[in-house]
Amino acid sequence: MTHLLSTSCTVNLSPAIKTHFRPQNKSTSSCFSSFSSHTSPIFKSFRRKLQGTNTIFATAAPINQEFEHVPKSLSSTNSNGPISKPKKVMVIGGDGFCGWATALHLSNKNYEVAIVDSLVRRLFDQQLGVDSLTPISSIQNRIRRWKSLTSKTMKLYVGDICDFEFLSEAFKSFEPDAVVHFGEQRSAPYSMIDRSRAVFTQQNNVIGTLNVLFAIKEFAEECHLVKLGTMGEYGTPNIDIEEGYLTITHNGRSDTLPYPKQASSFYHLSKVHDSHNIAFTCKAWGLRATDLNQGVVYGVRTDETEIHEELCNRFDYDGVFGTALNRFCVQAAVGHPLTVYGKGGQTRGYLDIRDTVQCVELAIANPSKPGEFRVFNQFTEQFSVNDLARLVTKVGEKLGLEVQTISVPNPRVEAEEHYYNAKHTKLIELGLEPHLLSDSLLDSLLNFAIQFKDRADLSQIMPNISWRKVGVKHGTAAVQL
Amino acid sequence: MTHLLSTSCTVNLSPAIKTHFRPQNKSTSSCFSSFSSHTSPIFKSFRRKLQGTNTIFATAAPINQEFEHVPKSLSSTNSNGPISKPKKVMVIGGDGFCGWATALHLSNKNYEVAIVDSLVRRLFDQQLGVDSLTPISSIQNRIRRWKSLTSKTMKLYVGDICDFEFLSEAFKSFEPDAVVHFGEQRSAPYSMIDRSRAVFTQQNNVIGTLNVLFAIKEFAEECHLVKLGTMGEYGTPNIDIEEGYLTITHNGRSDTLPYPKQASSFYHLSKVHDSHNIAFTCKAWGLRATDLNQGVVYGVRTDETEIHEELCNRFDYDGVFGTALNRFCVQAAVGHPLTVYGKGGQTRGYLDIRDTVQCVELAIANPSKPGEFRVFNQFTEQFSVNDLARLVTKVGEKLGLEVQTISVPNPRVEAEEHYYNAKHTKLIELGLEPHLLSDSLLDSLLNFAIQFKDRADLSQIMPNISWRKVGVKHGTAAVQL
Repeated sequence: MTHLLSTSCTVNLSPAIKTHFRPQNKSTSSCFSSFSSHTSPIFKSFRRKLQGTNTIFATAAPINQEFEHVPKSLSSTNSNGPISKPKKVMVIGGDGFCGWATALHLSNKNYEVAIVDSLVRRLFDQQLGVDSLTPISSIQNRIRRWKSLTSKTMKLYVGDICDFEFLSEAFKSFEPDAVVHFGEQRSAPYSMIDRSRAVFTQQNNVIGTLNVLFAIKEFAEECHLVKLGTMGEYGTPNIDIEEGYLTITHNGRSDTLPYPKQASSFYHLSKVHDSHNIAFTCKAWGLRATDLNQGVVYGVRTDETEIHEELCNRFDYDGVFGTALNRFCVQAAVGHPLTVYGKGGQTRGYLDIRDTVQCVELAIANPSKPGEFRVFNQFTEQFSVNDLARLVTKVGEKLGLEVQTISVPNPRVEAEEHYYNAKHTKLIELGLEPHLLSDSLLDSLLNFAIQFKDRADLSQIMPNISWRKVGVKHGTAAVQL
Repeated sequence: MTHLLSTSCTVNLSPAIKTHFRPQNKSTSSCFSSFSSHTSPIFKSFRRKLQGTNTIFATAAPINQEFEHVPKSLSSTNSNGPISKPKKVMVIGGDGFCGWATALHLSNKNYEVAIVDSLVRRLFDQQLGVDSLTPISSIQNRIRRWKSLTSKTMKLYVGDICDFEFLSEAFKSFEPDAVVHFGEQRSAPYSMIDRSRAVFTQQNNVIGTLNVLFAIKEFAEECHLVKLGTMGEYGTPNIDIEEGYLTITHNGRSDTLPYPKQASSFYHLSKVHDSHNIAFTCKAWGLRATDLNQGVVYGVRTDETEIHEELCNRFDYDGVFGTALNRFCVQAAVGHPLTVYGKGGQTRGYLDIRDTVQCVELAIANPSKPGEFRVFNQFTEQFSVNDLARLVTKVGEKLGLEVQTISVPNPRVEAEEHYYNAKHTKLIELGLEPHLLSDSLLDSLLNFAIQFKDRADLSQIMPNISWRKVGVKHGTAAVQL
């Protein structure tokens, strides 16, 4: 234990959560080879420097012995050059899908990173009997691996942000300049399983965010909050969606007001509540915040996650946590028809996980002013569900897959044909260079799903949660195994 | 105990809350005489029938012995005539200021009423060291007194609606046709005392309301939810405030969307969250709901509360729970300058407590359709704080009071001079006949405050809660006694 604790991560445990430090000895096949077609400059540079040492990535020996000769920092290859004054960024929810990719990206960009996470997302998988398509390492081993590869450290605070005592200690210890807040229950279907999960979602998300706001006010008043919202806060109005605010002229007078919200799940509603709470604290206390109304994220690899299998990100394809495009890729890979909910005209904003990390960094590097509550719509392209099914079919067939599409009863209550035109220029203006959903990108994503298809469990894919049937009884009690 | 339990109220206790049944033997002076100038027809009728028996109102002997000869029902004087099919109305928060007046009014109108209340509002008084200007009886004695006077029973369920097991039992037992939901922490200053009270307010209000929504869905799907919102949800936009929705034309397209919300305390925000949650459940589950965005309520007496001192409503004048006009009346009565926050241009909608009970009854009698989320702005007139101070000064001087006004630093973060024009026609269209703030009404209210001025505690009046200074430490720890 001592040996392992001497590696890079500083671990701070909440009294309520006890974890144990041990290397993961899972005999997972290396996923490193699957990245060979990827073109990331960091990846290529890293591969060159590690020539002849590839095999060690498949082992799980104590990592501080493995990489004693690796380059001190990947940041030497960073085209932006070293950052003179690294900022301290706390990534709440840094063990999750977007959070982990973001923590790595910011660390690679020489920000000093601390991850705050209760790890409850991993518990959800166990409770629901679902799993990431990709094998994922423990957060402790992820951080140690990153250190061994790059010499960059990340602090880790394991605890629940709804526990203000824990959060206070994390703030006082780390003294963040910015907080990226991914630390919420982030699945709409999860929030619609039953009453207790609806309540959990709103309580966890709203109170957790309130605690973050109070912690900033009390311990780090200059700290910039970068909060993950969702495009789902807006719903599907029959007018253009603006970025957070709308100038309205009514009865001869005019004002710029928060854009009206029409969320369509208890999860999406929790984000609406957060947005209102944050806006108020910016006004009342002078906090500075950026609300990133993110679209649906697809993909799994970023420049940083692909350098070692132990840094691999989670890839959800189940009916609760899987997002549309990822799920379609797995369905195509295993020969299951793509399941389109209802008519498939549901249109949303989408973005690549590599753009998620880029956007968050742009927000941090260009902070809001004190008192400012800034809203960015964080997506790069709009697609309907039918659009996605057509794209996956086309690219899948080129790969020799037989891809069928079926319509299944829509578990959600939503318009299946509607107007949708959402603005998303503010992050572009800050410098976002989108990774659009090209055929080659989709080809790469499909190949990734094919690579891991033996781990796919079809029973996870079908939607078994109905927006109309959500009740007070525990949803899992009704699961047929 | 058996003797007392044989009276009218059916009491259902949550396992978490134990109360004891005992008559209140407080030696409070009768407040009955103070109503002599009041013109309520019910009051006059009641006084006539009880001629010669007034003195017994000052006692607290077991009430089922006292009133065995009183008229069976006050409803015989109800100009609307008897209701052929009384509806069952659950009044959540029925022990509070608006809730108690409403429960009595609905009972008097022959609705079958059940009060659901955790009684935590009484605990707040004790914790903050404040008290109603009027002595108030226990909820058990209130209900028994009402029964003894009118032969009308009310059920009582004592428990916390955040405890879903308790709420479920109340729903299954009572089977409401309508639920009036006042059961929330309702003070903006309370929510701004410290972090724990901010969190309590949002958790209590949001989760309690979620539980009500789930209870309706599970146990009483046809039940009409009448939910108390607040005009404060809208903030002070520079355009006219509509009733819940706004038709917006933008870039050549048009849609009717929820009116944008700009709440300015954690309490007001909790109501915004509720509104979004309720709107969603109407859409997703087909629930029927009316959101009553209520203005600031003044007054204390209704036709029903004034018939006996034990039915007397609470009258809050402290810096946490007191509302502007009530507080000004007490200040004038005790010779304390009226404390105007800042410039005093803050304009809001106001209404008489008698209009609150009228509005709620109108909403119940004219329910929303299944799936409909209806929003009414529930107030009758707009006043600025300066308007109120001027009115109280004018009427106070006629009564021989020396009324001064001072400006105190505004503890709130709010515009002190702003445009304000809020629509409020929907309840008028349903039949609301407002009690406007005439000189004679204000005269009556001031006289009421004068009558009880010996119970006033000046230390309760001054604002000691700052919107900007709200912190993580327990606010009461800093109170100087």
